[in-house]
Amino acid sequence: MNIDARLEELALTLPPAPPKGGVYKPVVIIGNVAYVSGHGPYLGEAGYLCGRLGADLGLEDGKHAARQTGLALLATLKSELGSLNRVKRVIKLLGMVNSTGDFEDHPKVINGCSELFAEVWGDENGIGARSAVGMGSLPGNIAVEIEGIFELNA
Amino acid sequence: MNIDARLEELALTLPPAPPKGGVYKPVVIIGNVAYVSGHGPYLGEAGYLCGRLGADLGLEDGKHAARQTGLALLATLKSELGSLNRVKRVIKLLGMVNSTGDFEDHPKVINGCSELFAEVWGDENGIGARSAVGMGSLPGNIAVEIEGIFELNA
Amino acid sequence: MNIDARLEELALTLPPAPPKGGVYKPVVIIGNVAYVSGHGPYLGEAGYLCGRLGADLGLEDGKHAARQTGLALLATLKSELGSLNRVKRVIKLLGMVNSTGDFEDHPKVINGCSELFAEVWGDENGIGARSAVGMGSLPGNIAVEIEGIFELNA
Repeated sequence: MNIDARLEELALTLPPAPPKGGVYKPVVIIGNVAYVSGHGPYLGEAGYLCGRLGADLGLEDGKHAARQTGLALLATLKSELGSLNRVKRVIKLLGMVNSTGDFEDHPKVINGCSELFAEVWGDENGIGARSAVGMGSLPGNIAVEIEGIFELNA
Repeated sequence: MNIDARLEELALTLPPAPPKGGVYKPVVIIGNVAYVSGHGPYLGEAGYLCGRLGADLGLEDGKHAARQTGLALLATLKSELGSLNRVKRVIKLLGMVNSTGDFEDHPKVINGCSELFAEVWGDENGIGARSAVGMGSLPGNIAVEIEGIFELNA
Repeated sequence: MNIDARLEELALTLPPAPPKGGVYKPVVIIGNVAYVSGHGPYLGEAGYLCGRLGADLGLEDGKHAARQTGLALLATLKSELGSLNRVKRVIKLLGMVNSTGDFEDHPKVINGCSELFAEVWGDENGIGARSAVGMGSLPGNIAVEIEGIFELNA
């Protein structure tokens, strides 16, 4: 499967790869495994989707933010690897939701990213292990932060 | 060591493997490493142990919830791998406690899972690296969520 | 590069490796990868740097705590591996900040650790992938907790 063609078929537009917000590398590769730094819902020039689930953001806002975070992860992978065709599959995601103490729907929020990856790579390769949890706060008050581990093609 | 016999010896009863609560795989294997998705304290038909440490749950409640989460992780590993004998050792756990801002005993809570794994696999193989931390909120208000990385036998 | 000599050149003094605060191993090695348990800003006999960013700690306090956490991670790596020369590079850090709900500068805090590692191992090997996020609470009210994955020399 050609993933770049697949993105076009799905009419998906990637944002620019997000600028670094600290002292880290966007992606570190060891063997056939790529560790990708925590990403937020980056829109490009318009900045990040911000806010807190359970307070100023509803479930659909959160799911949309997670999908946008997925697009930002794809943008970084493409930028760092040269082509998304180098990615074989998703190994694991850690989905972190900016949420109030009584928020309970973190999995539904992070599904916004997981469903995107399933569209892009298919269910077998696009869906990995996952945790979806609620954070006390996130950098710049972004709505969602997701980090990932991906397997690369040999 | 036959782990299925060991569970019987310890008189441990596993809950059913928890149903999936979102778009993820319970376990992803790469090489001899298994990444297991975040699990909660699943009891089977009775659902999940819920509540917040520092508010409506005490330390023993939390430790019990972490032990139950460990049993749920074992149930998923057994279900996905066919037999717990395929697991060689615990590499790492991330123990996430649903807790108030002034709660300080996260390690004691997560010990409930770590002590269970030490009983099952012995100290050398059952005890791995770990972080034990406090979350702003967890899905469905579960008391504890734990994800793990396990080494499989070759 | 001899890292023990490099520490001396930088006039860095490591604290003792922190005592274990629960049922876990400080480091687990699989192949050429070392998983290091969550560490806090350990000072030795004086204990841990405690407090919450956004409440009783300012940004410089937090960054200092993250740097001290980095020194504690180095102390554990040296103690467990025999020599820091066995570490090839940083693969990934998860930087967890004890912070209020409205705190937004987690990356700047965790830079305290990342800049230390860049001084020690250089930018290429000392800077890895990273997430920097806000926790609802941390064990013993420590200011920062950081866990890491490191590549070892073959």
